[in-house]
Amino acid sequence: MDYQKIIDDLHLKYKNAVNKGKIATYIPELKKVPADKFGINLFTLQNQSFGAGDYQEKLSIQSISKVYALTLALKEIGEKLWKRVGVEPSGDPFNSLVQLEFEKGIPRNPFINAGALVVCDILISNLKSPKVEFLNFVRKLTNSKDIYFNEKVVASEKKYGFVNAAHVNLMKAFKNIKNDIDVVLDLYYHICSIEMTCEELSRSFLIFTNDGILPYNKERIISLSVSKRINASMQLCGLYDEAGQFAFKVGLPGKSGVGGGIVAIHPDLYCITTWSPKLNKKGNSYIGFKVLEEFTTITQSSIF
Amino acid sequence: MDYQKIIDDLHLKYKNAVNKGKIATYIPELKKVPADKFGINLFTLQNQSFGAGDYQEKLSIQSISKVYALTLALKEIGEKLWKRVGVEPSGDPFNSLVQLEFEKGIPRNPFINAGALVVCDILISNLKSPKVEFLNFVRKLTNSKDIYFNEKVVASEKKYGFVNAAHVNLMKAFKNIKNDIDVVLDLYYHICSIEMTCEELSRSFLIFTNDGILPYNKERIISLSVSKRINASMQLCGLYDEAGQFAFKVGLPGKSGVGGGIVAIHPDLYCITTWSPKLNKKGNSYIGFKVLEEFTTITQSSIF
Amino acid sequence: MDYQKIIDDLHLKYKNAVNKGKIATYIPELKKVPADKFGINLFTLQNQSFGAGDYQEKLSIQSISKVYALTLALKEIGEKLWKRVGVEPSGDPFNSLVQLEFEKGIPRNPFINAGALVVCDILISNLKSPKVEFLNFVRKLTNSKDIYFNEKVVASEKKYGFVNAAHVNLMKAFKNIKNDIDVVLDLYYHICSIEMTCEELSRSFLIFTNDGILPYNKERIISLSVSKRINASMQLCGLYDEAGQFAFKVGLPGKSGVGGGIVAIHPDLYCITTWSPKLNKKGNSYIGFKVLEEFTTITQSSIF
Amino acid sequence: MDYQKIIDDLHLKYKNAVNKGKIATYIPELKKVPADKFGINLFTLQNQSFGAGDYQEKLSIQSISKVYALTLALKEIGEKLWKRVGVEPSGDPFNSLVQLEFEKGIPRNPFINAGALVVCDILISNLKSPKVEFLNFVRKLTNSKDIYFNEKVVASEKKYGFVNAAHVNLMKAFKNIKNDIDVVLDLYYHICSIEMTCEELSRSFLIFTNDGILPYNKERIISLSVSKRINASMQLCGLYDEAGQFAFKVGLPGKSGVGGGIVAIHPDLYCITTWSPKLNKKGNSYIGFKVLEEFTTITQSSIF
Repeated sequence: MDYQKIIDDLHLKYKNAVNKGKIATYIPELKKVPADKFGINLFTLQNQSFGAGDYQEKLSIQSISKVYALTLALKEIGEKLWKRVGVEPSGDPFNSLVQLEFEKGIPRNPFINAGALVVCDILISNLKSPKVEFLNFVRKLTNSKDIYFNEKVVASEKKYGFVNAAHVNLMKAFKNIKNDIDVVLDLYYHICSIEMTCEELSRSFLIFTNDGILPYNKERIISLSVSKRINASMQLCGLYDEAGQFAFKVGLPGKSGVGGGIVAIHPDLYCITTWSPKLNKKGNSYIGFKVLEEFTTITQSSIF
Repeated sequence: MDYQKIIDDLHLKYKNAVNKGKIATYIPELKKVPADKFGINLFTLQNQSFGAGDYQEKLSIQSISKVYALTLALKEIGEKLWKRVGVEPSGDPFNSLVQLEFEKGIPRNPFINAGALVVCDILISNLKSPKVEFLNFVRKLTNSKDIYFNEKVVASEKKYGFVNAAHVNLMKAFKNIKNDIDVVLDLYYHICSIEMTCEELSRSFLIFTNDGILPYNKERIISLSVSKRINASMQLCGLYDEAGQFAFKVGLPGKSGVGGGIVAIHPDLYCITTWSPKLNKKGNSYIGFKVLEEFTTITQSSIF
Repeated sequence: MDYQKIIDDLHLKYKNAVNKGKIATYIPELKKVPADKFGINLFTLQNQSFGAGDYQEKLSIQSISKVYALTLALKEIGEKLWKRVGVEPSGDPFNSLVQLEFEKGIPRNPFINAGALVVCDILISNLKSPKVEFLNFVRKLTNSKDIYFNEKVVASEKKYGFVNAAHVNLMKAFKNIKNDIDVVLDLYYHICSIEMTCEELSRSFLIFTNDGILPYNKERIISLSVSKRINASMQLCGLYDEAGQFAFKVGLPGKSGVGGGIVAIHPDLYCITTWSPKLNKKGNSYIGFKVLEEFTTITQSSIF
Repeated sequence: MDYQKIIDDLHLKYKNAVNKGKIATYIPELKKVPADKFGINLFTLQNQSFGAGDYQEKLSIQSISKVYALTLALKEIGEKLWKRVGVEPSGDPFNSLVQLEFEKGIPRNPFINAGALVVCDILISNLKSPKVEFLNFVRKLTNSKDIYFNEKVVASEKKYGFVNAAHVNLMKAFKNIKNDIDVVLDLYYHICSIEMTCEELSRSFLIFTNDGILPYNKERIISLSVSKRINASMQLCGLYDEAGQFAFKVGLPGKSGVGGGIVAIHPDLYCITTWSPKLNKKGNSYIGFKVLEEFTTITQSSIF
């Protein structure tokens, strides 16, 4: 399969469509990103990288980072985590408090904001220096030291993060947050502020393609079973209230962020990442979704 | 009508029933109040006071204070207030976030917690020293200097007030809170911490019996129209999700608090206050509700 | 008080405003009513009638009829009725299924559609000829034989009444409907189809002004207590999700219908009815609400 | 892989656990099925069948039949179907009306009852003899004439199917049901009443394993793309509010029914069916879920 050609063709085809959709405006710092940024990268288990456009430029990975946080928390406390966070799709927009109240402070899954806040709470309870250790973990998965938090984005999110504060307070009321609210929010905004390139994202997600083993040094990070479960979670809950459409049209586990990134993985074959800042109505990258749909159609590589 | 005898009889009759229901436990400081406290006071427009039991002992008035806050805010900004708070019953338990989210941060009425938080926000925007001026306002209505905040109750509420913090954050996200969240919560917990006797409560609520005029010095505090509207709000929203039962069985506008107090007013005739700490399932004083029901039946003084 | 002049003035003042709002379109038969119909009638306990405009013309009373149904059902089975229907405001648009599902098939009050359907179910279980006996009951309250069901309206409602069918099926699933679904819906649509004039409506509601006694023959229909409770129910739940505004601005117990009628009663004084077909966003007569608000302001006769 | 041994071992291991969970009681006819029925069948693309226990006995397939209905409807009208039914998980118990009302009568997916009712409505609009053609379609997929509706189950469901009637009426109110309500419910109850063996179920679902082609005669029934999409739908929505757990622990697209059957398919490899009537709290076969979880762990055949 000539992956480079397929990716180049898709980049060319969608280049002029980058103006569809809307940039996320609730984080002022993100509004500064040029709307025409557009990158695609595919990284195979055979260590080959295929890229097009701005695939080596840093983007704000935002919610994609929730997958790293979940992985690290599962490494730390294992299956116990699932007593405090569910694994069911939410069936509601990603910032809804309704379901959280109805379900007594147990978020439906680790990829809605409330779920990621509980995961952060777990990391704080179990790590000595949560921020440092989290960053080191992502650097290790990526095999790169050049990954940082963006403190401006952190500050910007804190200033307007009232909905997240509402969530975490509600869960504290239900006793599903153990640490100080400000500390939990601080870690949460830090993990979301990480900046990486499409290529780095692809490379770091290869452990989920490789049954939990880091391809570059063969180190097992998580068990086969945990790796499959994280993939299943991404498939069912990775794209907010558009997970069904993504399974339906793309057919791969994936995770999106409001910075316009989407990562999708094919177990056994590859990891592919797209970046285009403008989002569709469900909060996922407009072009990215289209590119991934067309990619799996061309390569016939949906897992279904 | 021999009010003193009626009240004495009711006190005697219900004295041994004070163990029904449950003391509110979510504010630890309130748990210290002896469960057998039981007071009744009726104050007429003719300046007569009839009391039984612990009616001259201080109780934590809690949500009853929301009526003072609303009155003061209406004095300050008038009808504009109703753009930021509704006047419809909530149809939901008093701490629910569901409706608030559905209605985009506009609380349904000024007596649910979210509504009182917006009222506090308005007071902060319009008063130089909100806490001092609020306290002075209540003292003026009561014609007594002996009314104070209880800082222990404030501290106790702040420590466990995560649901209120969730509400105020959510409304801030919808831009219906203008001031700093901590400042709003601080005022809110202060106004709820006020301690007054049954007799003081009755006396201070007489303005709503007297069309907005203070009986003791004939000063008009609010217009006839505003007075009637506050009465209507109490009738429809004053007893959380039991307002219907209260209208149905007692038939007077009233306001309850989780400290076990209930104030009810009869336009043109009297104001009556009961205090018994144990609450029914809806969060209203178990005995207080019964006493008021029986009182309006005996005196045939429901407004309906 | 010169009631005739006040009513004439209000009729004159609002005559040219009848085009505000929208006629209910979901019952095709109702769309045929000329939008400029406008009547006002006030009937006092002293048996005086004051009218203006089309107050002696028949209108489709629709939901106003739910008050008669409730009264008759309370006559039949008494307080037991409240085990199957609540007395709390709904806090939701009048056709919402959400709350009904949440509360396990017990409608919040007898004036939302679901509540009225349960009341019809009770009438069917307790009356030999429910339709005939219901009609006779209304005729007796009105002291007139000239009151009929409109079978065209019944047919029109049946044809499009899918939401009501959803409600009644859901309650049947929760075992709160005992009779056949079609029989319940048939009675419900019949009671809603009754046609009366403003004057007849005022006259028939005088029992609630008169503590349960028919003024024209002094017959007691319901006890004082039941009469007051029905008034309380109207105050809290009589105008769908606008009950708060109505209490606030009009200050009287009342009941509206989508045919554009509103009846309001002042305990001890009078009953007043308005009719204008165009409705505001909450489903209540646009002009009628305004007229009643101004009437109680002029006459200072709010119960609060 | 020695499938026969694996299945025999699982059958032996779980045989004594068939008493966990509860038989569905809302369809009286289903209560008559002996609780200790227990069958497993695996059918490979290579036309090999492996069975244990009661795998050749008929069971009431119930909701599993919704997959056939969806497939047939997609054959008839293609992608247009998705304008009337969504593809997102519901995040709510399978009989909830809340979401349906919120989303204006568009069911979230074709496997919740409301979605299947819309699919039935589509079949009625597009087929001459819906019941006959549906049955023939299932027989063709299964390559067997010995498949029938159970009219007793139909009658039993109709008698107690008030929740389904509520759903279909609500959707009719939103104009998402075109045909007569009774006709739609009649077809719906018929398709759910079909009886098949585990082996027949496995065999008939092989088209989803085989990219839309019937293995036994190589006839293409649906396109590759439609086949993958149906698999994706099953993965995300096939097990009511337990789809996440199923993806997580079993890792295959699947569909369950309240008769105690579960079918799961592995694209490219096999289809496996289990049957045990007692259900867990989410309404899925208690033992069946366990068996499938253990099966994919042993065979390492999760798609993730």
